[in-house]
Amino acid sequence: MGASVPDHFEQMWADLEPIGKGSHDGGYYRQPFRNAERELAAWFVEQARARDLRLETDPFGNQIAWWDVGDVGPPLPGVVTGSHLDSVLDGGAYDGPLGVVSGLAAVDRLRERGFRPARPIGVSVFVEEEGSRFGLACLGSRLATGAIGWDEARALRDPFGVRLDEAMTGVGLEPDDRKPWLDASRVDCFVELHVEQGRALVDLGHAVGVASRIWPHGRYRFEIAGEPNHAGTTRMEDRRDPMLTFAMTALAANKQARVAGQRATFGRVDSRPNSTNSVPSSVTAWMDARCETDEALSELVATIIRQAEERAGRDGTTLAVTPESVSGAVDFDPDLAWRIAVDHEAGDWPILPTQAGHDAGILSAQGIPSAMLFVRNPTGVSHSPAEHAEMPDCLAGVDALAETLRRLAS
Amino acid sequence: MGASVPDHFEQMWADLEPIGKGSHDGGYYRQPFRNAERELAAWFVEQARARDLRLETDPFGNQIAWWDVGDVGPPLPGVVTGSHLDSVLDGGAYDGPLGVVSGLAAVDRLRERGFRPARPIGVSVFVEEEGSRFGLACLGSRLATGAIGWDEARALRDPFGVRLDEAMTGVGLEPDDRKPWLDASRVDCFVELHVEQGRALVDLGHAVGVASRIWPHGRYRFEIAGEPNHAGTTRMEDRRDPMLTFAMTALAANKQARVAGQRATFGRVDSRPNSTNSVPSSVTAWMDARCETDEALSELVATIIRQAEERAGRDGTTLAVTPESVSGAVDFDPDLAWRIAVDHEAGDWPILPTQAGHDAGILSAQGIPSAMLFVRNPTGVSHSPAEHAEMPDCLAGVDALAETLRRLAS
Repeated sequence: MGASVPDHFEQMWADLEPIGKGSHDGGYYRQPFRNAERELAAWFVEQARARDLRLETDPFGNQIAWWDVGDVGPPLPGVVTGSHLDSVLDGGAYDGPLGVVSGLAAVDRLRERGFRPARPIGVSVFVEEEGSRFGLACLGSRLATGAIGWDEARALRDPFGVRLDEAMTGVGLEPDDRKPWLDASRVDCFVELHVEQGRALVDLGHAVGVASRIWPHGRYRFEIAGEPNHAGTTRMEDRRDPMLTFAMTALAANKQARVAGQRATFGRVDSRPNSTNSVPSSVTAWMDARCETDEALSELVATIIRQAEERAGRDGTTLAVTPESVSGAVDFDPDLAWRIAVDHEAGDWPILPTQAGHDAGILSAQGIPSAMLFVRNPTGVSHSPAEHAEMPDCLAGVDALAETLRRLAS
Repeated sequence: MGASVPDHFEQMWADLEPIGKGSHDGGYYRQPFRNAERELAAWFVEQARARDLRLETDPFGNQIAWWDVGDVGPPLPGVVTGSHLDSVLDGGAYDGPLGVVSGLAAVDRLRERGFRPARPIGVSVFVEEEGSRFGLACLGSRLATGAIGWDEARALRDPFGVRLDEAMTGVGLEPDDRKPWLDASRVDCFVELHVEQGRALVDLGHAVGVASRIWPHGRYRFEIAGEPNHAGTTRMEDRRDPMLTFAMTALAANKQARVAGQRATFGRVDSRPNSTNSVPSSVTAWMDARCETDEALSELVATIIRQAEERAGRDGTTLAVTPESVSGAVDFDPDLAWRIAVDHEAGDWPILPTQAGHDAGILSAQGIPSAMLFVRNPTGVSHSPAEHAEMPDCLAGVDALAETLRRLAS
C-alpha cells in the first residue's frame, strides 16, 4: 500500500478520544440524542465544514457529508461510506467511529492525490446503530431507508420512558417530513469500514478484509416460572426453582453452540423478586444466537429449547420462549465485494462473513448494493473498553477505503 | 383443645386482609414506615385501645400492648408474645401478622375464661423484621435489645437512598432517646407464634409445634468477573463468560445442599451490563445457605466455593466470595420449650428446628428466654402470596398460645 495519512487520521482520533468516556474503566457511553453523541454530531459538522463538504442532516439525525462533483444537471447517485458514532453502554472506541474517521481520512487522501470523482462521494453517520437507548439496532438506517416506518418507531421509549420523537425534538431535530429518503436514486453503493469483531483477520494474517455476508441472528426471551418460596425453610426437594432451569439452559446453550461451531449467549437475566432469601418466582433471560445459515440457527435454537424444557420438567418449572427478533442472513453484493477485494499489488483481500449486524446490512436488505471492509482486531474483543486496533492497521484501513472509493467513484 | 375464639380472630384477620395487598397476584407489600405498614401500626393501636391494653411505642416504632396486673410497686418483668406486621415484597398474609393477631386473640380468650395473670402479659409488634426495606432482618428487635446500636443503624439506607432515621422521623417517630431498653428486667420470657415455613408439621400430623433452634445461616456474595465482548462475533472458545461460572455454581449449590440435606439458594443475580448481545463483563450473585450445624454450614459453603473456583478456572473468569452475614445457630431455652410442649390433654407438642431467622432468635441471643410456636402450613410455602394456613389450625394456634401464656404468667 502507498503512503498513509497519519496526521489527519490521528488528529481526528485524538479529537474523539475524550468524548463520552467513562471514568470507571475507560468505556464509552455515547447514547443517541444525549450530550456525548450530540458533541460527536457537532464534531462531524465541523469536519465537513473544514473540508468544504456539503452537509446533509436528515430529519432522523443521520448525517452525510458530500464531496459533490459540481456538474450541472441532476446529481448522480453517490458512493457512500461511513458508519456510526454511538456506542453500546461501556463500549469501545472503534466500533463505529473507526468507519467515520476512516471515511473522512480517505477523502483527504484522495484529494491529496488529486483524484476527481466521477460521482459524488458521501461520508455518513447513522444514529442509534447499537440500539443502546431505544432497543432497536440500526435505527437510523432503518428509518432513512424505510425498513421501519416513523409511525412505528416514534413510539419507542428509552429505559427512562422518553419517547423517540421527544428525544429527537429535544435536541432540535424538526418533527416534520420524517419520511424515508435513502434509496438507489440517492446512493449508488454503500461501503462501511468497521473494526473486526473477531479474530479471523489475525488468523488469516491480513490487516483488511471484505465482508461476504452477515450471519442469521435471533434474540429469544426465555420466561421460566417457578414457585416463590422461603430460601431457608423450603426443603430442596419441595422447590420449583426457576434459577436452576435457567442455569442449565445457559450451560446447554454454550455447549450446543460450541459443538456446532455457532454462537449462543445468555448475557441478560432478570430474577424476580431478586431477593437473596427467596426461591425466585420467575427468571427471565434472553438468548442471543447466530449461525452460519438459517437452518443451523433453527436447529441450534430448537435443540437448546428442547434441553431447557426437559430440565423445566425435572425442576417443576414452566418455560415459555418468545423470539423477539429473528433476522435471516444478509448476503452482500458479490460483484461489489469482488470489485473491492481483487487486483491489489499485495494480493487479494480476504472475503469473510460477520456475525454482527450493521447499517450496511440494512441498506443491502433495502436493495442498495453494499459492502464492508474490516480492520484487524488483535484480540477480537468488541463491545468492551478493551476493543482495539493497532494504528498501522487503522491506517491500512484508510488506504484500503481510499482505494475502494477510487474504484467505485471513478 | 377447648373452645376456640373464631369471632375475634376472624374479625381481626378480615381487618388486615386488604392492607398493602397488591393487585397483581394478591401478594403483600408492607414495608416499614410506608403507608401500608403505618396503617397496620394504627390498627394495632386501635386493637390495644379496644381491649384497654396499655400501649407502649418505643423510639424505633416497636409496639407492645400491655395487660397490666395492676399491682402496686415496681412492675414484674412481663411475659411477651407477638411478632411483626411487615412483609417481604410480594409476600404472604401469615408471616408475621398471624403471631400478632393470635397474641391479641389469646388475650381475649384468657380474659373470657377469667384468667388473672400473675405478671404482665404483652403483645408486641417489631418493625422491619423482614429487612425488606433497609436490608437488615429483625431490625426492630435488634435496636430494642441493643443487638445493633442506633449510631450504626441510623445510616442504613433503603433502595431509594432514604436513611433509616429520616424514614422514622418522616412518620413522626421522635429522634431522641433512641437507646436499647428491652432486657430481662422488662421481659421475663418471649414467645413468638409463627406460621411454619416448611412442612414438618404436615409430616408429623400436628397443628402446632414448638421451636428447638434456628439453623446457622449465611449470605455470601459471589462476584465473578469475565471479559465483556460481542455476543455475535466472539468465538465460543475465545470467551471468558462469567454467566457460565454462575450457572454452574447455582447448579452445584443446589446439588450439594440436596445431597447434604441442607439448604443453598441463589435467588438474586445481577449481570453487567445485562445486555442481550454482550458477553457479560461480570455477574454478581448472592447465595443463601443454612445448615443444621455451624460445621455443616462451613463445609457446604467451602464445597460450593471449591466447585465454583474450578469452573472459573475453566471459564477463564475470576471469583471473589464475600460473606455478607453469617449467623451461628440459635438454641432456644430448652426448659421453656419443655414447659410449653408437654402435659397436654392430647399429648405433647412436637419440638422441631427452623431454618428461618425471627425476632425470637434475636431476643434469645440477647439473653431473654425465648420460644416459638409454629402453626401448620399445608404446602410449606412462605414468602409468597401462596403462603397459607387453614383456619382450624390458626384457631388451634390461638388455643396453644393462650395455654402457653397461662402457664408462663401464672
